[in-house]
Amino acid sequence: MSFELPPVRPVAEEIARAAQAKIDGKTKPPGSLGSLESAALRMCRIQNSLEPRIKRKQSLVFAADHGVTAAGVSAFPKEVTPQMALNMAAGGAAINVFCRLGGIDTMIVDVGVDYDFPAEAGIIDRKIGRGTRDFSKERAMTKEEAEASLQAGIDSFRDAAMQEPISLVGLGEMGIGNTTAASAIICALTGITPEEAAGRGTGVDDAGLKRKIEVLEQSLALHSPSADDPLGVLEAVGGYEIGAMAGAALAAASLGTAVVLDGLISTAAGLLAAAIEPKLKGYLFSGHRSVEQGQAAALQALDIEPLIDLNLRLGEGTGAALAMHHIEAACAFLNEMASFESAGVSGKN
Amino acid sequence: MSFELPPVRPVAEEIARAAQAKIDGKTKPPGSLGSLESAALRMCRIQNSLEPRIKRKQSLVFAADHGVTAAGVSAFPKEVTPQMALNMAAGGAAINVFCRLGGIDTMIVDVGVDYDFPAEAGIIDRKIGRGTRDFSKERAMTKEEAEASLQAGIDSFRDAAMQEPISLVGLGEMGIGNTTAASAIICALTGITPEEAAGRGTGVDDAGLKRKIEVLEQSLALHSPSADDPLGVLEAVGGYEIGAMAGAALAAASLGTAVVLDGLISTAAGLLAAAIEPKLKGYLFSGHRSVEQGQAAALQALDIEPLIDLNLRLGEGTGAALAMHHIEAACAFLNEMASFESAGVSGKN
Repeated sequence: MSFELPPVRPVAEEIARAAQAKIDGKTKPPGSLGSLESAALRMCRIQNSLEPRIKRKQSLVFAADHGVTAAGVSAFPKEVTPQMALNMAAGGAAINVFCRLGGIDTMIVDVGVDYDFPAEAGIIDRKIGRGTRDFSKERAMTKEEAEASLQAGIDSFRDAAMQEPISLVGLGEMGIGNTTAASAIICALTGITPEEAAGRGTGVDDAGLKRKIEVLEQSLALHSPSADDPLGVLEAVGGYEIGAMAGAALAAASLGTAVVLDGLISTAAGLLAAAIEPKLKGYLFSGHRSVEQGQAAALQALDIEPLIDLNLRLGEGTGAALAMHHIEAACAFLNEMASFESAGVSGKN
Repeated sequence: MSFELPPVRPVAEEIARAAQAKIDGKTKPPGSLGSLESAALRMCRIQNSLEPRIKRKQSLVFAADHGVTAAGVSAFPKEVTPQMALNMAAGGAAINVFCRLGGIDTMIVDVGVDYDFPAEAGIIDRKIGRGTRDFSKERAMTKEEAEASLQAGIDSFRDAAMQEPISLVGLGEMGIGNTTAASAIICALTGITPEEAAGRGTGVDDAGLKRKIEVLEQSLALHSPSADDPLGVLEAVGGYEIGAMAGAALAAASLGTAVVLDGLISTAAGLLAAAIEPKLKGYLFSGHRSVEQGQAAALQALDIEPLIDLNLRLGEGTGAALAMHHIEAACAFLNEMASFESAGVSGKN
């Protein structure tokens, strides 16, 4: 397998001034729509239009297992990965509920679960392996697998977009153990320490958190992943679903689709993708502020602020799905609100 | 005119345990849906049901003028109150855009604008006066006017709910000068100082902020409003639209409708209503965290946390309208997500 980097155009710079003028002409005190104004500006730049439109919304959820669970870093057993993937395929998980509420299409993709899903379950099969290897002892995957995981994400996005273009894509995941992989990636790419990066994931206790930090320290010492080699980072301490999310983000940006990141894992994937192709940054939104502390460093590196802060720590793409409503609100105010001039409203004293 | 306090039943206490058990049985790590879990619990208690439903959503916007604008406390001229009310009636304001996006009905009510709206504008006429008096010099309104403003809100809600019951009501306002009135109310009811309460409203500069604090200090010294007499507070330093929002909140709660507060002014109205009838508290949601610092003290007194933090400072009920999506998400996860048992998913290690 191989990996073909999709060509990403920089977002439009030249439209920013006109977009800001349009925003400032709306019947409201200047800046009073806060983050929605920045979101509207970003959508103008992504679509190179003063009338950005959100037509089709898609959530892509990638599932995979993690060898590092053998090191005792998670509160849930790894059997939960296939169980939850089946729950999602059946429409019973939180991501399904929020996508139905928001009119968002969902697609569940197996890129590396240690389980044979029946074809009728409705899970797309792009399995690269049956889970990564335990990266506290050896590299999580081979170079070929790392490339294949990126390609799986690229192909998944292109498949989803084939029938009808996608305006917004939310990136989610399911993979017991993947907050450990995501934290390791963020450490490698931003330089923060395991202690600064590690959180409680799905709910480890104090001893579990300590263990997780030790595993991260040990793994980073073992592999010495370099920020200059993002593919090498993925190979050493990544996960198949993290590579796939990174690939999906790159494919989305190359087709002019805005990408909504979710929590820690999805943000780590965005960071990885932006390390591969820095022009991606302009296409990214942060769906929500995770309670996982490592996310903050990744967001800072990506220069984006979360749209939602509801103390979510579920993953699956749930925060991204909920945040789409705010991005829609941003486009709607820009397209539909009257201007001071058109409504005959007086400006500031 | 007079004011008839609508009877408010306490929200159901006894259902909380079963509701929490239902939340904890859903296929997600315990607590991982954060504030949405608290919102779901609150909706169960309001509707006394383990299957809370959101059928009809309504936004009520009350407009009025403020005599205190003569003291130079606002960045915009008072003509903007009727101009913006007309803009809302025509569907061109931010509140209209967000309500259309969210499937929320809107009603614009004039309770005291210094302008004669044409009947065909579509603004409900419940005018109590042509703006309050300048409360830095005299009481903002008479006792009769204060009662009438509450009654106007009660009647507005009941009118809106007449055809079909309302599940969620968002309370918004338009009234140049009303952040000063709202700040004064919050000072009177919570005991914080004008310096702690005052923000920049629609955008006053440093000198304007200083002036606003002085006006607040002078007005509170003049009237000495007492937290034990909420109606007296409204009379001394309130606004007609603030009284109307308080009345609407009370009427909503008495009919079992959840109330979504917006920013500073709407939260001041919620605080006032809860001072009149403490049982109201259980029916309240805070739509968004305002950049106006006085809101925090009011929220603390009401024991509620904002659902949205987007640096909004527009008012009109915009934050409340956007937050409804999150309350709907809360009900939807409770009603639609699979349980660990039903989906065959393993629990924590």
